[in-house]
Amino acid sequence: MSVIDRMFARANQTQSSVLVGLDPLVAKLPAKFSAKGLHGAAQGILDFNLEILEAVHDLIPAVKLQMACYELYGPEGIRSFEKTVQRAKELGLFVIDDSKRGDIGSTATLYAQARIGVPPLFEGDAAAQGSDFVTVNPYLGDDGLTPFYDTALSQDKGVFVLVRTSNPSSAQYQTAQINGMPLYEQIGLDVQAKAVEHQGKCGYAPFGAVVGATWPEEAVKLRALMPNVPFLVPGYGSQGGRGKDVVPCFDAQGSGALINSSRGILFAYQSQGAPESQFASCAREAVVAMNDDINSALEAAGKTAWAV
Amino acid sequence: MSVIDRMFARANQTQSSVLVGLDPLVAKLPAKFSAKGLHGAAQGILDFNLEILEAVHDLIPAVKLQMACYELYGPEGIRSFEKTVQRAKELGLFVIDDSKRGDIGSTATLYAQARIGVPPLFEGDAAAQGSDFVTVNPYLGDDGLTPFYDTALSQDKGVFVLVRTSNPSSAQYQTAQINGMPLYEQIGLDVQAKAVEHQGKCGYAPFGAVVGATWPEEAVKLRALMPNVPFLVPGYGSQGGRGKDVVPCFDAQGSGALINSSRGILFAYQSQGAPESQFASCAREAVVAMNDDINSALEAAGKTAWAV
Repeated sequence: MSVIDRMFARANQTQSSVLVGLDPLVAKLPAKFSAKGLHGAAQGILDFNLEILEAVHDLIPAVKLQMACYELYGPEGIRSFEKTVQRAKELGLFVIDDSKRGDIGSTATLYAQARIGVPPLFEGDAAAQGSDFVTVNPYLGDDGLTPFYDTALSQDKGVFVLVRTSNPSSAQYQTAQINGMPLYEQIGLDVQAKAVEHQGKCGYAPFGAVVGATWPEEAVKLRALMPNVPFLVPGYGSQGGRGKDVVPCFDAQGSGALINSSRGILFAYQSQGAPESQFASCAREAVVAMNDDINSALEAAGKTAWAV
Repeated sequence: MSVIDRMFARANQTQSSVLVGLDPLVAKLPAKFSAKGLHGAAQGILDFNLEILEAVHDLIPAVKLQMACYELYGPEGIRSFEKTVQRAKELGLFVIDDSKRGDIGSTATLYAQARIGVPPLFEGDAAAQGSDFVTVNPYLGDDGLTPFYDTALSQDKGVFVLVRTSNPSSAQYQTAQINGMPLYEQIGLDVQAKAVEHQGKCGYAPFGAVVGATWPEEAVKLRALMPNVPFLVPGYGSQGGRGKDVVPCFDAQGSGALINSSRGILFAYQSQGAPESQFASCAREAVVAMNDDINSALEAAGKTAWAV
């Protein structure tokens, strides 16, 4: 079974399509994680992540780490990123490295090795190295994407290409016209053309697309155009998306999509007005509620997930 | 004087528009820099960089660091990146962080703080922190660019937006049509619209554009459309560009562009068949030759640089 088969198998086992976004912000952490300096910040976000992982891991298939939250603290931040990835994998979770890298040729290969592959001179356990998936920016064209696809295949890892992002200004350049369609559709078709050649047993390839929850009508079309491409869906919760909004991202069997929520889960204790000592249990409750919201919406739409 | 004024002042003082690309690859380094493991690799590229900087710093205004070459070695690689930046700045060079970051809203702000700003809880010398410029991917639209512009202005730093990259497949998505023009032109116009509001004394803003040396005819048009936008020009040397190819990237006064070469300088000893002990002097000779090539081409085109 390829990485995408194994990830969807865990989605089925946990009856969850939720991706918890580990995007810790030092300013929002409970006081017990606060500390001085970049070292302290990096330690604080790691300790916070480990408690969140402990609280939610059995409920979900995967986590997504927003690289910017780690890179901000320099080398120590990157170390906290790596340790979080390692712990998540130990807990059986799949890990998406949301670093939106994009460069060309040999440089793209270096990024792919860094994020989902094995760097030259690496001496540890190569099989345990790196995240399972990385997000990639397509603006540079095939020269920027092919090295990521190739590394993914050789390492049994995967890639999610930015197709239609969730932010308000995403239409600004993503809807430029090409071959009679918006640019994001063409990029989606190009990902699909690669995906159809590399389907796993689940029908999906390890070549996915980022499709924002904030554009449900476009998601309907993209889902139809890209039957072998798993969707990574940001924009649920804080950005306004709800269960019913993400239904179009799933296939008729209620599979094929992972829905991310970051702040809505990590900082649930704040939105619930709970004491900060309850941050972990509040995060767990938020995941349970999100699973229910999405599964109910799928059921209401006749996309019965988790056939038993 | 803003950062862009100071950088072009140094270009004038050194009579050079050359940007040395510090993109070290462990496999290509002289044997004395080789070592075991990721730690060893990170140390090797740092030591190599320091010798290159020593050899070329008086000949050029700036260096560009390809982040992928550092990120590849994890936390130790990032440390080597930071130490290289620090040494380059001590030598009076301006530093462009070529990490092509791109994300939205609050995440883009985190990236901007990480690369050209000051992270929360940072306790060192804030004024000495970070690179002078960072490269940014525009696919996410204004939500992705504005936080970088804002951070640049608040920190007296700058940004180079990917407009028309140098790679063979760059036309694939960058020439999608929007408002009757190719997407890359529209992005260029949008950068210009920001730049015109923030010109330094030199007439350029700290908001630049990446424009590949491999597309001279498009560079002519972009130079005319973007009179206040400095160009960062990759593709010279290894990717085929020559002095005459980059002339269109300069304004009538022979200013407004920085031309990058990485492998052609760092590994000049290999292409020249020199013993590896001469890597530093070969790099210096390659910079001198590149300065001559570009300055001669500018002069031949009547764009007399370095008015004395």
